[in-house]
Amino acid sequence: MSAAVPREGLRGVLPVAPTVFRDDESLDLHGQRRVAEFLVDAGSAAICVLANFSEQFSLTDAERLQVLEATLDQVAGRVPVIVTTSSYSARITRERNRDALQRGAAMVMVMAPFFGATMVVPEDGVLDYFRRVADGLDIEIMLQDAPMSPTPLPVPLIARLAREVPQVRHAKIEVPRTAAKVRALRAAAGDDLPGLYDGEEAVTLVPDLDAGVLATMSSATVPEALAAVVARYHAGDRAGAVEAWERVLPLIHYENRQCGLAAAKILLAEGGVIGSARTRAPFPEIGPRTREELLDLARSRDALALRWA
Amino acid sequence: MSAAVPREGLRGVLPVAPTVFRDDESLDLHGQRRVAEFLVDAGSAAICVLANFSEQFSLTDAERLQVLEATLDQVAGRVPVIVTTSSYSARITRERNRDALQRGAAMVMVMAPFFGATMVVPEDGVLDYFRRVADGLDIEIMLQDAPMSPTPLPVPLIARLAREVPQVRHAKIEVPRTAAKVRALRAAAGDDLPGLYDGEEAVTLVPDLDAGVLATMSSATVPEALAAVVARYHAGDRAGAVEAWERVLPLIHYENRQCGLAAAKILLAEGGVIGSARTRAPFPEIGPRTREELLDLARSRDALALRWA
Repeated sequence: MSAAVPREGLRGVLPVAPTVFRDDESLDLHGQRRVAEFLVDAGSAAICVLANFSEQFSLTDAERLQVLEATLDQVAGRVPVIVTTSSYSARITRERNRDALQRGAAMVMVMAPFFGATMVVPEDGVLDYFRRVADGLDIEIMLQDAPMSPTPLPVPLIARLAREVPQVRHAKIEVPRTAAKVRALRAAAGDDLPGLYDGEEAVTLVPDLDAGVLATMSSATVPEALAAVVARYHAGDRAGAVEAWERVLPLIHYENRQCGLAAAKILLAEGGVIGSARTRAPFPEIGPRTREELLDLARSRDALALRWA
Repeated sequence: MSAAVPREGLRGVLPVAPTVFRDDESLDLHGQRRVAEFLVDAGSAAICVLANFSEQFSLTDAERLQVLEATLDQVAGRVPVIVTTSSYSARITRERNRDALQRGAAMVMVMAPFFGATMVVPEDGVLDYFRRVADGLDIEIMLQDAPMSPTPLPVPLIARLAREVPQVRHAKIEVPRTAAKVRALRAAAGDDLPGLYDGEEAVTLVPDLDAGVLATMSSATVPEALAAVVARYHAGDRAGAVEAWERVLPLIHYENRQCGLAAAKILLAEGGVIGSARTRAPFPEIGPRTREELLDLARSRDALALRWA
């Protein structure tokens, strides 16, 4: 069970929980619960599981359920839990949505349908897809607009989705020039799409807040620092938000450009939150030099992940 | 259980079995068995399940097993069964390979690892991936070289995979200029890679046979006609093979350019082999005009799918 999502959208930081593996790549559900507990303590406004930063592309269907169940049980309604349910098949995504709702998830996040580099769905097909995945379900849906999907989500299509599929009330924009896209979406979709968020490790957070995002779906690296940035911004202290964000930017920028999803695991393992920083092959391993540089940046920012355990 | 694969590779036609759905998109395992029976009767040298032309990207893990089990049971060792086991995660693909071997599949087909349009694996990562998916398994592996994966498989890498991973003894090449790539692979890989095949609905079959492919992994549309082409070619009757292939080319070319994986289902449903031509959304539906043109071409070629039932 998780907390409900406010009608006006989520505000703050909505970190992605990494999927925790042991050194042999098997699921570590104890570590998964520790990550959820850490993220609640860090002041997260919601927790997202099974995202791409959770290596969802490297999980079996059965493992997806285990991760979701462990997280919902551990969070126990303290914050909303968001679960990624994307699949090319509308039937499979709808079934995952129905199941997530029944288990107590607060929101689902769904990419435009695609497969590989070449299977792209035209605009009418995308609209039909989202109608199907929402059909008959009382659930909040967040569109995920990421370059990983070769199926594009231009502003007019997102606005149309928000208008014609009532469950679509949120969108995470993580493309080049997110701020401009967020401004265009506010103009085109208005109240149909109250929840606008960014991603990409929050490396464009202040420009995106200026454009109108309410929250950032970051990694689990420094959620406490990003929560503070968004809180200051929403309290009217833009200068304080900028100062806090610029202080953490070298770290999240290093994460974004040098490490990707491995960064959060490295910090959480170094801090003893989880037992192993393992990712599933063939996800590229991080070399010792990069790991040390990342940890140096994290230590100098006093990252909670390093001192929480 | 399925028949074994000859050491020197498969010769003939290795059609992909579509995954059969009812009109409500649920699995039709009776129809799946009928397709397997049809393909055996059509003279297939092997049957491939769970390929991209089987909409594997629209199946749950549980459904994959049901399709594989129904096909293995129906085929009952009369021909080899090939099963696609591709996943980004080497761990998952190895587990699928182990399971397929245990259930009696003769061969697995695996793409280079990728996710979406952007998650590409470098060459050393691809080599490590194939070592892992084959690790400790006495199984025949067919590389699938298709543009759907953004991770490239250049000739030197395929040759290296065949040399360093003994289970990799087959490759299906389905890229622009397959014939030239097959020639380059014969020169680079030699006896390490006896099984070279093409795909793409066999629209380049004669040039590919001239280059050295032993078989074609076609769709289930006109396997009997393609089996005859390959048989004539291997019997030394190249002129007869060309004549037979050119006769069927307008149909398979129409399939390739206008219909994709839907074509085989349309013929099989029209002929009463299966009860529904349904594909899972958002795969694009074929309009009535296209359907009629396809069927006209199939009738004029006396397609077995239309008269087998």
